[in-house]
Amino acid sequence: MTDDIRLCRTFQTAPAAVPKDDSAKYLTSGLEAEGFQAPDWLVPDLEDGTAPDMKEQGLENTIENVPEYEFPGEIWPRVEWSYEDETYREKGRAQIDRLVSEVGDEIDGVVVPKVGRLEDVQNAAKAVAEAESEHGYADGSIGLSIIIETGRARSDLREIAQFGEDSRLTALVFGPVDYAAELGGRDLGDGMPRWDGLLEALSNEASAGGLLSIGGPFDDLFKERAGLTYYNADEYADQVEHEARLGLDGSWSLYPKQTIQANTVHMPTPEELERDVNKIERFNEAKREGTGAVTLDGQMVDEATFKNFRNTVQQVRAIYDTRPEQAEEYYDEGLLERALELELSYQ
Amino acid sequence: MTDDIRLCRTFQTAPAAVPKDDSAKYLTSGLEAEGFQAPDWLVPDLEDGTAPDMKEQGLENTIENVPEYEFPGEIWPRVEWSYEDETYREKGRAQIDRLVSEVGDEIDGVVVPKVGRLEDVQNAAKAVAEAESEHGYADGSIGLSIIIETGRARSDLREIAQFGEDSRLTALVFGPVDYAAELGGRDLGDGMPRWDGLLEALSNEASAGGLLSIGGPFDDLFKERAGLTYYNADEYADQVEHEARLGLDGSWSLYPKQTIQANTVHMPTPEELERDVNKIERFNEAKREGTGAVTLDGQMVDEATFKNFRNTVQQVRAIYDTRPEQAEEYYDEGLLERALELELSYQ
Amino acid sequence: MTDDIRLCRTFQTAPAAVPKDDSAKYLTSGLEAEGFQAPDWLVPDLEDGTAPDMKEQGLENTIENVPEYEFPGEIWPRVEWSYEDETYREKGRAQIDRLVSEVGDEIDGVVVPKVGRLEDVQNAAKAVAEAESEHGYADGSIGLSIIIETGRARSDLREIAQFGEDSRLTALVFGPVDYAAELGGRDLGDGMPRWDGLLEALSNEASAGGLLSIGGPFDDLFKERAGLTYYNADEYADQVEHEARLGLDGSWSLYPKQTIQANTVHMPTPEELERDVNKIERFNEAKREGTGAVTLDGQMVDEATFKNFRNTVQQVRAIYDTRPEQAEEYYDEGLLERALELELSYQ
Repeated sequence: MTDDIRLCRTFQTAPAAVPKDDSAKYLTSGLEAEGFQAPDWLVPDLEDGTAPDMKEQGLENTIENVPEYEFPGEIWPRVEWSYEDETYREKGRAQIDRLVSEVGDEIDGVVVPKVGRLEDVQNAAKAVAEAESEHGYADGSIGLSIIIETGRARSDLREIAQFGEDSRLTALVFGPVDYAAELGGRDLGDGMPRWDGLLEALSNEASAGGLLSIGGPFDDLFKERAGLTYYNADEYADQVEHEARLGLDGSWSLYPKQTIQANTVHMPTPEELERDVNKIERFNEAKREGTGAVTLDGQMVDEATFKNFRNTVQQVRAIYDTRPEQAEEYYDEGLLERALELELSYQ
Repeated sequence: MTDDIRLCRTFQTAPAAVPKDDSAKYLTSGLEAEGFQAPDWLVPDLEDGTAPDMKEQGLENTIENVPEYEFPGEIWPRVEWSYEDETYREKGRAQIDRLVSEVGDEIDGVVVPKVGRLEDVQNAAKAVAEAESEHGYADGSIGLSIIIETGRARSDLREIAQFGEDSRLTALVFGPVDYAAELGGRDLGDGMPRWDGLLEALSNEASAGGLLSIGGPFDDLFKERAGLTYYNADEYADQVEHEARLGLDGSWSLYPKQTIQANTVHMPTPEELERDVNKIERFNEAKREGTGAVTLDGQMVDEATFKNFRNTVQQVRAIYDTRPEQAEEYYDEGLLERALELELSYQ
Repeated sequence: MTDDIRLCRTFQTAPAAVPKDDSAKYLTSGLEAEGFQAPDWLVPDLEDGTAPDMKEQGLENTIENVPEYEFPGEIWPRVEWSYEDETYREKGRAQIDRLVSEVGDEIDGVVVPKVGRLEDVQNAAKAVAEAESEHGYADGSIGLSIIIETGRARSDLREIAQFGEDSRLTALVFGPVDYAAELGGRDLGDGMPRWDGLLEALSNEASAGGLLSIGGPFDDLFKERAGLTYYNADEYADQVEHEARLGLDGSWSLYPKQTIQANTVHMPTPEELERDVNKIERFNEAKREGTGAVTLDGQMVDEATFKNFRNTVQQVRAIYDTRPEQAEEYYDEGLLERALELELSYQ
């Protein structure tokens, strides 16, 4: 029933290895997270989040720990890559090969950063296809998500998303730090630009290509005021809400508290759920009673309109399927029950 | 003289049939409107504005009423369509065929909503061409305008507008409600996004392709404050002025008072008219006196500059041609006379 | 060492001829400018800045004066052109031919305004190539920069910048006045739009194509308040800082005081220089001591990161090379020395 819903409210990266006694500390803590701290996607980070001398350890940590947990969401390791440096593409190919070989059943796909124009994205897709085929996985079983963080990828965004319509490409994720560096963007006291044109295009092209769109990381985790240092909840919520308004499907999280916030903003509000459950209940009732087209509040419910209502319900069901405790905590029991029991067929 | 001016300050939709004693009430009221309440384009709405069980009646109302009135503006019925549902395209084709067959001489074109990528727009153009040919109308005599309200149409906007350069495509109209639904945009308390990137692109591509660009509907017609419910003039004016600043040619109206406001904002102000009439008068005088290039205020008046002045005057003339009462009410008598009498040739 | 840095913090246009006793007054004053008033690029303007009856004189002034001065920056005359008028393209070709013939060794390229779609830009490039070949200059020795000021050029911006990747195309410069006129943009009391979507795209496409991106002119040079008329420093700085934030490489200047401001905003701040010199010094030290990858502040310094540091230093070196007095005035002596002496190789 929820087959066309791909949930990624939260794209949480965790360094795959850190210089601590337990080098997999952040990775396992992501795998173990519960309640609203549990992300939809956990991204073991073999790229910028893991120091160069710990990359090998990061790969081992990923291979060793991921199968140990029954993580209900999706697992998407981020590998190394660069459109402008073959060395990094070679490393990326080796990491992809190793991951597919060792934990191909446990991961949903790989995240490839610093892609360039369409051709480079196609090369990344080919690297995944080769690993898949080499290790006996069905074509398309390992997904590909990419970080949009170069001028070239932004320039080819429309073509890349069209390529995504029928390929393993799954999510387009914004990478503002490298993007700003490449364009030469500068912080002259008011912070970096928000790149509104890019965000709007990301939402549009992902939607047109049937892909997920995810915002960029927010790394001012803490702020200090009046002698106190505290978690910067307000500014992160502002960013996540801005992304949600524009139709992005999810936000990047670097930290459990960010995951709580992004999970919450990107799920239908109780009011949205109540409204759409109500519409479908009335639609179903009218269907049982009449024969012709169904009209609600003076508007014909065509298939497209119905899809919008259904989408809300399906998203809540998808959340309930993977993280029942989140749905139960967030929605009134009666409402949730109605959402779970509804007949969702238009015909 | 005004042959290259296509006026569409107001794109006013009217439900083609409503469940009232007089089901054509809103349609005829649009056809009869006078003064500043009279729109440049009247759009009998057979799509979302008319309930499913009244669509047939709406088509009859349109066919019956449109020829009864000498409407000085343009008539553009909106038919059904959907890039993602052949059923709606079939309905749309039948409606187009019927309209061209019965009132092909009375309408200027049809408005097709929910188009997808370029190919779908070309299919809509083909549907119009077939009806035209079937009923003996000259090629291109029935225009096509489209609503940009899907991720795919936004993605292909440049290519669609280029197709419009030499086709029957006439206007690109924004449809924010369906657009936001398709992208998954959300109102988290501050309203929906304004989609600034899309609006800027709409103005640019329409300009590059020689098409008209029209903003989307604003449906918070009334607001309530301090116990009083009243027409929401301020917010609609804000939207229309924003569209005018960006170079959109017209705005969508749902209501006679909105038509007054959009007509007004999208006509040259008296100051703009005075300024450009003045420039052309001085240009004409200099031309009579001298032989070489004409310089005004230290700037050579090249053909492109002259076109800008002329455009203002031609627009006022076009308004005067269709709605003399509007021009007479808005401009000082002497100024209007000068604008109507001016020689407008560059050579 | 600085071979990949092309400096254009300031694109200063000067009328090539004005109706004064000394018709080359503004041109020579640009050629003679010193300190922060000296622009990186001086653009003798044969187009809108010079009256039609003085164009011939403007061409003579340019040919006569440019070789007289040892201008340390670049010289880029702006010729006439129009995508929609062959007459202007003919004038432009003749001006390009004359300039290359007479001062081909003294100019770095020509600026072509009012270009249309890609094909028109390619025609402009061909005009330069023909003059080059006709007068015995090596292929590519005379550059081409264009003003983006038509709907068509904005529509084809991505394709134009891709053409720029391996052609003589050097800079994309925004022209807001003609652009707004073509789109029909209007000032309804709050000024013209800032065209944020265009500026963001200009920065992105220039970056993806390896080109320079330059903002548009600001012509409210003076403002009047409380009885005093004075230079409008605030608003120009706001515009230039906005452009710098978005990653534009330089700004358009119409006036020596504007040149001071744009030069200043578009050079690395002392803090930025100190930070990046520091990073490279520590990198170099770590390289000398160790063998493997270098990590600074917990981040591996990969080649892309290193490039960002190096870019700051190379830009300061480029400024020092052409305008040592600016670098010496702006940076602390010790810091500047460190920047000039640093080893900048990644390997």
